Amino acid sequence: MTGVTSNNTPAGKTVAIIGGGVIGASWAALFLVNGLKVIISDPDPDIAAKAGATIDAALHSLVALGYAAQEYGTRLSFEQDNRLAVAAADFVQECAPERVEFKQALWQAIEAAAPAHALLLSSSSSIPASVQAAKMADPGRLVIGHPFNPPHLMPLLEVVPSPQTSDTVTARARAFYRDIGKVALVLRKEISGFVANRLQAAIFQESVYLVAQGVVTLDELDDVVTSSLGIRWATSGPFLSFHLGGGPGGLTHFIDHLGPPLEQSWATLGKAAFDAPTKALLAEQVARSYGTEAFSALAETRDAKEIAVINGLGGVTSQS
Amino acid sequence: MTGVTSNNTPAGKTVAIIGGGVIGASWAALFLVNGLKVIISDPDPDIAAKAGATIDAALHSLVALGYAAQEYGTRLSFEQDNRLAVAAADFVQECAPERVEFKQALWQAIEAAAPAHALLLSSSSSIPASVQAAKMADPGRLVIGHPFNPPHLMPLLEVVPSPQTSDTVTARARAFYRDIGKVALVLRKEISGFVANRLQAAIFQESVYLVAQGVVTLDELDDVVTSSLGIRWATSGPFLSFHLGGGPGGLTHFIDHLGPPLEQSWATLGKAAFDAPTKALLAEQVARSYGTEAFSALAETRDAKEIAVINGLGGVTSQS
Repeated sequence: MTGVTSNNTPAGKTVAIIGGGVIGASWAALFLVNGLKVIISDPDPDIAAKAGATIDAALHSLVALGYAAQEYGTRLSFEQDNRLAVAAADFVQECAPERVEFKQALWQAIEAAAPAHALLLSSSSSIPASVQAAKMADPGRLVIGHPFNPPHLMPLLEVVPSPQTSDTVTARARAFYRDIGKVALVLRKEISGFVANRLQAAIFQESVYLVAQGVVTLDELDDVVTSSLGIRWATSGPFLSFHLGGGPGGLTHFIDHLGPPLEQSWATLGKAAFDAPTKALLAEQVARSYGTEAFSALAETRDAKEIAVINGLGGVTSQS
Repeated sequence: MTGVTSNNTPAGKTVAIIGGGVIGASWAALFLVNGLKVIISDPDPDIAAKAGATIDAALHSLVALGYAAQEYGTRLSFEQDNRLAVAAADFVQECAPERVEFKQALWQAIEAAAPAHALLLSSSSSIPASVQAAKMADPGRLVIGHPFNPPHLMPLLEVVPSPQTSDTVTARARAFYRDIGKVALVLRKEISGFVANRLQAAIFQESVYLVAQGVVTLDELDDVVTSSLGIRWATSGPFLSFHLGGGPGGLTHFIDHLGPPLEQSWATLGKAAFDAPTKALLAEQVARSYGTEAFSALAETRDAKEIAVINGLGGVTSQS
């Protein structure tokens, strides 16, 4: 959708993807439809077959989103050695395991092997750039480019600079992701979990609490969300929703009148934990609700629905 | 959408709506397109004009959702006196002010004036049936039928019985709402805020916290949600999302591997309060982000997008 209408694609440039798992392969598909050359670096000797299957499925979804079907041919290649993979890269999108020491050593090696102009981007959802860059000669070169899963479908991209990241690098990262159609937002402070996953954690804690308390079953809670909040938040975020909920007086009127009961409701929100009884309850309920359908069928339905929502919203999706 | 395909509509029956404000008028439009006769009871002498305007706008949206355009003519009427309004009602949908004493007296009067078979339903989002029914001769007749705003568009309906509500009343309420196309779910326990608003409170607290901390502005936070979590939750609830996030091993695998970091992230979630600096910050940001567009234009865009999402998901929306 937005990617199709991008006017400033980095077509013809080269991106090295470090780690060809599900996230890396999803990125590869998005980069390929945007005309980039893609080199995937992964130690797995079977990576070409594994990543290739994920890429082909993702390309199918991208065509459903309006991208032209295309042969990528030699624009996709594989190179086990990280240093060789990044040697001619304009962009490096790291999707390696979430282990601190591993990433620190990785960036030290990549920084030495990549061209000086290469943009160094980490897909990490949990290890901030300030930690990952500890062994780099110039920590200012690294920035987080955290996608929302699956990266080829979900518009969001959280750009999270560390306090050391140079403003130029942050601006170039934002521009790169916008050029390939992302809603790329620069966070103003490093914070654990960034924004989207913190919000997701907040709703999930209350979800687990309500199921553990026996108020609803987990599939009933899912139905509550898909038939109300999900529709609302696909179209208007929490603040715009309450701004409109306040009528012509807007958010200020809303908070003046409904702020006190909202604060009271915050005090009643639950705490949850994955203790043995909760895990057993969730396992029993998920088996009953979703266990009868194959993973692949459920995942296909989800992707088809996400594409329907994105296409339904079409060009009217807001982008600041 | 789902309402259009309902096989068992209560067409021809009579519903009395107590309170003709925004919620009551939205309900009226939905009842009218489902063939019901609607009597609105409201003390405002101008209620016919005010509610009429809201109803006409809602009918426009309902046609966009696939309902046949229709003349409701004499199927809509107004009656100031509550007792006369409910005298021939098959259903009573209460949308009166959220004041405990007011509702308790109201139900006492309605119970005495309505036919014995009439289903007594409260739209309340905050006062449970057990409290509202305190002065009723038979508290077993009352049940919450809480819509998600706006009621004519949003599929969700939370049916919340009190411990006194009879099983027959609960089952009839659920059937009534499903017959008019709602995703009607019966909560298994009375709890303040019910389910949807508790989840909304959880995400809103973290949203206010992140803005107050300066991690994002409120419009940036809205963009995060509409470009990631909203799309996900419009199609799959929190549990199905993480069930699929666990790969073929499902939710159990997900919790085994990502449960511990999730629990850690719960410990870092923020607390928020509408203190003076926070209110000033939100007022300043909302004026800059959304204050330049008219309320009516923003609301129309929201409604159009919600209709696009609902229509995009079409007949594949899950319903347990």
